[in-house]
Amino acid sequence: MWRIYQFPLCPFSRKVRLLLSEKGVGYELWRADPWNADDEFWAMNPAGRTPVLHDPDKKVSLSDSRAICEYFEETVDKAPMINGTAANRAEIRRLVALFDENFFGDVTMPLLHERMKKRLILRQPPDSRVLREAMKLAHGHLDYIDWLVDTRPWLAGPQMSLADLALAAQISVADYLGGIDWDGHEQARSWYAVFKSRPSFGPLLSERMEVIQPPSHYALLDD
Amino acid sequence: MWRIYQFPLCPFSRKVRLLLSEKGVGYELWRADPWNADDEFWAMNPAGRTPVLHDPDKKVSLSDSRAICEYFEETVDKAPMINGTAANRAEIRRLVALFDENFFGDVTMPLLHERMKKRLILRQPPDSRVLREAMKLAHGHLDYIDWLVDTRPWLAGPQMSLADLALAAQISVADYLGGIDWDGHEQARSWYAVFKSRPSFGPLLSERMEVIQPPSHYALLDD
Repeated sequence: MWRIYQFPLCPFSRKVRLLLSEKGVGYELWRADPWNADDEFWAMNPAGRTPVLHDPDKKVSLSDSRAICEYFEETVDKAPMINGTAANRAEIRRLVALFDENFFGDVTMPLLHERMKKRLILRQPPDSRVLREAMKLAHGHLDYIDWLVDTRPWLAGPQMSLADLALAAQISVADYLGGIDWDGHEQARSWYAVFKSRPSFGPLLSERMEVIQPPSHYALLDD
Repeated sequence: MWRIYQFPLCPFSRKVRLLLSEKGVGYELWRADPWNADDEFWAMNPAGRTPVLHDPDKKVSLSDSRAICEYFEETVDKAPMINGTAANRAEIRRLVALFDENFFGDVTMPLLHERMKKRLILRQPPDSRVLREAMKLAHGHLDYIDWLVDTRPWLAGPQMSLADLALAAQISVADYLGGIDWDGHEQARSWYAVFKSRPSFGPLLSERMEVIQPPSHYALLDD
């Protein structure tokens, strides 16, 4: 069985877990904190990042969350998530990159730094200026999501795709860390509410990072 | 014909140009500076980054360099660059991500900031501490490249792949900006020398960014 080396608030691990669940691929969670990575972890992934997937029976290791998703898309027929014409597939991958890089860099990463790393590792208080800036940038991203939801059934087109999984993973971490304010974003909120009630999402919503608690609405399916 | 919106020292545009040249796909260069992006550019790519590809006849726009490369890999049979088994393809994509994200973040991005943005836009002198740190991290990456070249014909396996193009693109920009010291990296140097003499590489080596000149060895094919 696949092992996923990850920590509970890693958005890229969450994206991979959502994909595996949708595809019906079983996995075990193995805890790995990139900030405490040992030589064994660096040997598995010279990029030093989670998630890393390892199958001890097949002796296969995979890293980089987009490479991992492409691997399962190519090897498991169920629930295709990078589908359609080449142009459709380019649109899915463009949005995955937008969420993995821009949403993460603008919103999820500063929240993880201020509210997780500073608390657990650096033992410093969060910088409220950085948190305000992340929440401001989150509104800009949510404006764009509102527009996508207004114009398409799913974020990248007519079908649910890896773009939906990638954004849901980022938002779930940002929401856990108190960084999402849905005010004025009804379309994005309704898209996320549908997503939260999918069976693949349940395990993420019930998982907790030590010490850090999510806001009370985090795991509610109607909020 | 495809238009590539880019600036001469964008490593991701260079990766895409190498791929298109290897595949024999024609293109025109259109200058776009992300730091001066206008509304038209933001409309083409909400991530605000180069390259953006646009075909005015087909009315197709593509952005995110990895999504663009996958698009041409799927639509042009010549010179496959993401090839082999699913595990081979995962290894190619893992290395592309390592070079696009880690090499770029550790080496190319700080060099671009200190030696291009500060000179052209911010009108500040470079920070020698940042430059030293980037060159130190470059040595770590080149150690890993030496090891790959020692163990495989090309970086990701038996065939030239997108991993080679991605690293060559990053190194060419870092080398232009004086950030590559090959001392102690004979394997990586010999791999890059082979690459520099490919026809696809010529146009990159002859192109210049305004004001900023590369070191004298930059375009020499035997150095």
